[in-house]
Amino acid sequence: MRAGFVVVGGLLSLAAAPPKYIKPTDIVDAAPASVWRAIPDDDLLVIDMQSGGRVVIQLAPSFAPVHVANIKAFARSDHWSGAGVYRVQDNYVAQWGNADTEKPSPKGVNDKPPAEYWRPLKGLQVTPLGFPDSYAPAAGFSGGWPVAVNAKAGWASLTHCYGAVGVARGLAPDVGSGSELYTIIGTPPRQLDRNITIVGRVIEGIENLNTLQRGTEALGFYKDPKTYVPIAQVRIAADIPVAERPRFEYMDTSSPSFARYKAARGHRRDEFYETSALGADLCNVPVPVRKKS
Amino acid sequence: MRAGFVVVGGLLSLAAAPPKYIKPTDIVDAAPASVWRAIPDDDLLVIDMQSGGRVVIQLAPSFAPVHVANIKAFARSDHWSGAGVYRVQDNYVAQWGNADTEKPSPKGVNDKPPAEYWRPLKGLQVTPLGFPDSYAPAAGFSGGWPVAVNAKAGWASLTHCYGAVGVARGLAPDVGSGSELYTIIGTPPRQLDRNITIVGRVIEGIENLNTLQRGTEALGFYKDPKTYVPIAQVRIAADIPVAERPRFEYMDTSSPSFARYKAARGHRRDEFYETSALGADLCNVPVPVRKKS
Repeated sequence: MRAGFVVVGGLLSLAAAPPKYIKPTDIVDAAPASVWRAIPDDDLLVIDMQSGGRVVIQLAPSFAPVHVANIKAFARSDHWSGAGVYRVQDNYVAQWGNADTEKPSPKGVNDKPPAEYWRPLKGLQVTPLGFPDSYAPAAGFSGGWPVAVNAKAGWASLTHCYGAVGVARGLAPDVGSGSELYTIIGTPPRQLDRNITIVGRVIEGIENLNTLQRGTEALGFYKDPKTYVPIAQVRIAADIPVAERPRFEYMDTSSPSFARYKAARGHRRDEFYETSALGADLCNVPVPVRKKS
Repeated sequence: MRAGFVVVGGLLSLAAAPPKYIKPTDIVDAAPASVWRAIPDDDLLVIDMQSGGRVVIQLAPSFAPVHVANIKAFARSDHWSGAGVYRVQDNYVAQWGNADTEKPSPKGVNDKPPAEYWRPLKGLQVTPLGFPDSYAPAAGFSGGWPVAVNAKAGWASLTHCYGAVGVARGLAPDVGSGSELYTIIGTPPRQLDRNITIVGRVIEGIENLNTLQRGTEALGFYKDPKTYVPIAQVRIAADIPVAERPRFEYMDTSSPSFARYKAARGHRRDEFYETSALGADLCNVPVPVRKKS
């Protein structure tokens, strides 16, 4: 039983004055302007669906520079005109791109990119999660990203949390160019970490992907190309007229505000929670991201 | 680098004969009939949506006997006629029931049930997950359910994995009767464990809930009751004519097949995976459930 509560006849009742509760969202709302970092306009991939919905993806050039450069080249050459979502597998991924065409890559694309499955830990500042990780020796946050870390082996990798965007590929040794992408729409499939290049994360509009009908074929592929969900255009925010340009910022994961937020996510204690967990999983401590006013 | 692979010019190539790969799905497909356990017809809640979709929930009377009895009484008294889905919060929950009515409970319902947030560990056979848990001292499986365990304190609880079904409630000490239920549609919010009564899990048709439009109000509530997604009928499978009755079975989580499946989920190694993780999170080892032929 938790302090502040007493057991009366098997039911819980509030005893005396409640303790001072603090919710993770309160910490985010109260965070000073100084802990928010603008996402560069050049790192925002803006996907407008033909339905009118918009999906915004923050790219991660510090983890996957070659693939992110490819993706910018694809976006800037209209490579994805005629593309669509062709795979939605429940509790796993939604995937899009040019499914059934062998469209040649535009100039500037590296068709044989290296496997950017992890990067050297050296040069990264990592704030530890503070709780154990099921998949890697350690987990934490770096530059606003949730990362898995092996200090001994010297690597850090992005992680397959909800909304993570990765590069679809065939069987190894295929790596994928970035022309076909997926995002995670369910339980974090962290077994994919270090087996696929993660290039970013969805920061707005994931419901335009995860509410789509699940595909009926194996692995959630859509059977009939006529049912692919069409993408109207894909742009980099920096190329959108300033007045219409979407802007976002994330909480500095090395800030005191984030440290408090992380602790509160790991030890919930407010009017709703009676019992705190021992901690929290990396993917259950989502880095706060918000529209920039 | 993994055995069987050599690095050639920065790309991975297969060297000599490939090792014998085994996928989790191969283990499930090859499992003998003896490891499958029928789910009792009386423990299946069958929700038919007005749209034609069907959601099937396996109830967990061994963990929440009073709430499960309530739910059966609600279903058998047509309590949910006129009910609908009134809340869908992205990466969190879809929730349904009689939202805006104070419909009196039918006979047989305990309106003040105990908080069935956990149960005594005593009497349960638990197969350990074998990997650490972020939320509890230990995790494992019992009678086909993913559970969190504290051996020292002597409790076991069901867990908020994808598809888990819980009893919506107000602030503590409210417990909820079971007339309003939710299911998890994103990252497992395991902080809810031992703060809410879990009564079962969705085993079929979760896409009838998780593809619904996200609510625009705080916490994903729908603004306009006219947009609630109507439920046509809710029945217990045992009350459905035998010829039309849905039947399911789950893999015995104490069986050798499940042990192999669990190990394979924790250490992926096949044509797709080049690098195995250290283990797997409890919720990323979903207990195999299938239609009974």
